[in-house]
Amino acid sequence: MKIDSVRFLADIDELGTIGYREGQGITRLALTDEDVRARDWVQGRMEEAGLDVRVDAAGNVIGRLEGADPAGKTMVIGSHLDTVPQGGKYDGSLGVLSGLECARNLIEADVKLPWNLEIINFTDEEGHHFAGTFGSRAMMGSAAREELYGVKETGAPSLADSFQRVGLDPTRIDEARRDPSEFRGYLEMHVEQGGTLEERGIDIGIVTGIVGIYRYVIEVEGQANHAGTTPMASRKDALVAAAPVFGLLPEWARARSDEMVATIGDVTVSPGAMNIIPGHCRFTVELRSIDAEDMARVRDRLDTWLDDNIRSALMKTVYEKDGVYLDDVLMSHIARGSRRSGVESVAMPSGAGHDAQSFAPYVPTAMIFVPSRGGISHSPDEYTDPEHLVNGVRVMMHTLLSLAEAEGQED
Amino acid sequence: MKIDSVRFLADIDELGTIGYREGQGITRLALTDEDVRARDWVQGRMEEAGLDVRVDAAGNVIGRLEGADPAGKTMVIGSHLDTVPQGGKYDGSLGVLSGLECARNLIEADVKLPWNLEIINFTDEEGHHFAGTFGSRAMMGSAAREELYGVKETGAPSLADSFQRVGLDPTRIDEARRDPSEFRGYLEMHVEQGGTLEERGIDIGIVTGIVGIYRYVIEVEGQANHAGTTPMASRKDALVAAAPVFGLLPEWARARSDEMVATIGDVTVSPGAMNIIPGHCRFTVELRSIDAEDMARVRDRLDTWLDDNIRSALMKTVYEKDGVYLDDVLMSHIARGSRRSGVESVAMPSGAGHDAQSFAPYVPTAMIFVPSRGGISHSPDEYTDPEHLVNGVRVMMHTLLSLAEAEGQED
Repeated sequence: MKIDSVRFLADIDELGTIGYREGQGITRLALTDEDVRARDWVQGRMEEAGLDVRVDAAGNVIGRLEGADPAGKTMVIGSHLDTVPQGGKYDGSLGVLSGLECARNLIEADVKLPWNLEIINFTDEEGHHFAGTFGSRAMMGSAAREELYGVKETGAPSLADSFQRVGLDPTRIDEARRDPSEFRGYLEMHVEQGGTLEERGIDIGIVTGIVGIYRYVIEVEGQANHAGTTPMASRKDALVAAAPVFGLLPEWARARSDEMVATIGDVTVSPGAMNIIPGHCRFTVELRSIDAEDMARVRDRLDTWLDDNIRSALMKTVYEKDGVYLDDVLMSHIARGSRRSGVESVAMPSGAGHDAQSFAPYVPTAMIFVPSRGGISHSPDEYTDPEHLVNGVRVMMHTLLSLAEAEGQED
Repeated sequence: MKIDSVRFLADIDELGTIGYREGQGITRLALTDEDVRARDWVQGRMEEAGLDVRVDAAGNVIGRLEGADPAGKTMVIGSHLDTVPQGGKYDGSLGVLSGLECARNLIEADVKLPWNLEIINFTDEEGHHFAGTFGSRAMMGSAAREELYGVKETGAPSLADSFQRVGLDPTRIDEARRDPSEFRGYLEMHVEQGGTLEERGIDIGIVTGIVGIYRYVIEVEGQANHAGTTPMASRKDALVAAAPVFGLLPEWARARSDEMVATIGDVTVSPGAMNIIPGHCRFTVELRSIDAEDMARVRDRLDTWLDDNIRSALMKTVYEKDGVYLDDVLMSHIARGSRRSGVESVAMPSGAGHDAQSFAPYVPTAMIFVPSRGGISHSPDEYTDPEHLVNGVRVMMHTLLSLAEAEGQED
C-alpha cells in the first residue's frame, strides 16, 4: 500500500485557494463564507472517496468508513479547516486531508481495519467565536452551553448566530456529544508550529502531550513621583519592585523541566514618562507545561515571591487549563510507523493546543508532527516542505496498519 | 525691619487668580494672554513699590532699586511667573514676589544696600516654547539663537512668534545679555518640589546645587516568537535581556551618592502579547546629580553593562546637561538669615532645574527652598503653608541684610 502523494499534495493546494489573498495568506474564520466553502469542498472530497458523510449538531463534518466490524469501535483522524486571520495552508488542513488520504488508500486497496474510521473536520478550532476547539469539545461533552452565546472583544458574532446563519440549530448542540467508549482512538497530524524538528533535522515528531496553559496578570502599585526631587531611599518604584520577577520566572521554569516554558509577554509602566517614577507596573505571565505539578509549583513560587517581596502586588488568574499526556500505545505505533516509512522520529511535547486535547482525557490519543520552516505558523509564511507532508501522511497510514496488526484483526 | 506678611500673602493670592480655573489650577503658559496679564500685574506692583521697571529684549521684567552705590554691583532676586499647564500658584511666583516684598521693605525702612537690587520675572522658565529657563539664559548669554525658532511636538508657537505677538523683537535678543561681573549675586526662593523638608519638619532648605540631567533611550532587540512552541533555551527574549538593568541602575546610583537619582520611567515591550516572546524592549534612563563625575560614572557603567551583556542593545543619548554647585558664601548667609529668623535650615540639593541654574556658572548664586506639601508640584495640588511662605521671605530679607553687614557697607 502506497499513498498517492500527488493527489494528497494537490488536495492541500486546492484547499489552500479557499480564502486565500495575495500577500495575506488564508483567512477562513470559522463558519464564515470562506469556511463554509472549505467545509463543502471537503464534504465533496469525502463523498467522492466513498465515505459516508454527515454533519453533526456542532457542525463537525464527519466522513465514515466502516471497518471489519461496523458495530465495533471507531478510530478518528481529525483536525480543522478553519484558520486564524491571515493564516497558512497547513495548520489544521493537514490533519483532515491526511485522514482523507488514508481512507482513500484503504478503500482502493480494499483493506478493512479492525475499527471504523472517521475523518473529521471539527468546528472552530481557532476560536474565532469564543474559546477554540469547540467542535471537538462538543463531541466530548466538555463545551459549555454558554460558549454559544459568548462574544469576544474582536466583534465576531456569537457561535449561536453563526450556527443559525449556516443552518445549524444551536439548541441541539448536546446531540453532538458521543460516548468516549465508542472510540478506539484519536489521531491528528499537524505542523509543529515550532522550530525543533527543523533544527534537529528530524522528519516526524511523536507528541508526548499537549501543554496546559496558565495565564495571569500581575499589577504592582508603587507611587508616581518626581524623578528629580524624590531621593532613591524615599521611592516606591513599581518597576524596580517588579523587575526581579522578569528574570526569576524563566529561571524557575527552566529549573522545573526542559519542556516547561514561562513568558512575560507584556509589561506596561504608568504613567510612563522619562521624569516620573513608575507608580504602577502591570505585566502578564504565561506558563505552559504538560505536567500539572510543574505548572502548580511555578505558579505557587511566583505567588509566594510576590507575597514576600511586593506587598502591593495583585495576581489575577486569567485562566488555568491543564495539559494532557498522550497515549503510550498509540505513540509506540507512530514510532513503528515512522520506522516502516523510513523516516526518523523524536518524542516531543506540543506547545500549542489542538483538537487532540479535547479527546485526550477520554480517548487514547496521539499526534504526528511534521516540521514547520522557521517554526512559523499562524502566518502567511507558514510552510512545510512537500517531502515532509508526504512523510507525515505515510507515517499516519503505517501507524493505522501497525496498530491494526497488533490488535490481530486486520482483514 | 519686619516684612509685611499680610501684603505678601495677598500678593500670592491675587497673582494666583490669573490663569486660574476651578479644579484645574493655574495655566499661564509663557507669553500667552494669561502670562501677559501676570507680567503686567507684577510690573504694576513693582512700580507702585517705587522700583524702576523695564522689560529687556528677552521679555524679562526687571524692577530696580538703587543701592548705596548706583554704579556698583547688582544683586538679583528672580524667578518666573509662567507656569506649566494646570500648575500651582507657588512655583516661580514665590521667587519674584519674595524679592518684591524685600524691596518694599527696604524702601519703607529707607535702608540702602551696598548693591543695587533687581527683582526679575524671567521669560519662559517652564519651556512652553522650547527649552526652558530662556530669559535667564538669554541674560547670561547661554541661550542659542536657534531656540527662538525651534518648535516642540506640543504644537506651541515658536518663541519668535510669541515675541512678535507681545511686541518684542526676536532679532534683538542679544541685547538682553549682560556682563556677569555686573552682578554681586543671584538669589531665588522656590518651593522644594520634593518631600524632604516636610518629612524632616524643617522650614528652610539651603540649596547646595542644582542637579544635572542625563537622559537616554535604550533599545534591546530580541526575537518575537510563539510563547508555547519555543523552548526556553532557544529564546531571544528582549525583556529578559533588559530586565537586570531595571534593578542594577538604581543600585549603581545609590552606590555613588545619596544625592544621586536614577530612574527608568518608561518600558515598552513589543509586540506586547501574553503568548508572544518579547522581540523588542525599549526603556528610558534618566540620571540626576549635581556631581558631573557621578553622572559620567553611572552612565559609563550602564554603557559597559549593556555592551557586556546585550549585544543588540542600542543606547541613544537624548541629552546631557551638567549640574551646578551653588555659592558657599551666599549659602552661609542664608544659614545665618535662617537663624536670625528663628527657623531651622538644612543644606540640600535641588532635583529640578531653575533660573538660578542659568546664573550659577557665572555669578555667585544661592537658593532658598520652602516645603512643598506632599512633595507635589506642577499640579493644582501644589501647596505650601502660609507660615512657611512668610518664613521664606523673612529668611530672604535677613540673608540680604546679613550679607550687606558682612560686606561692611550697609547704610
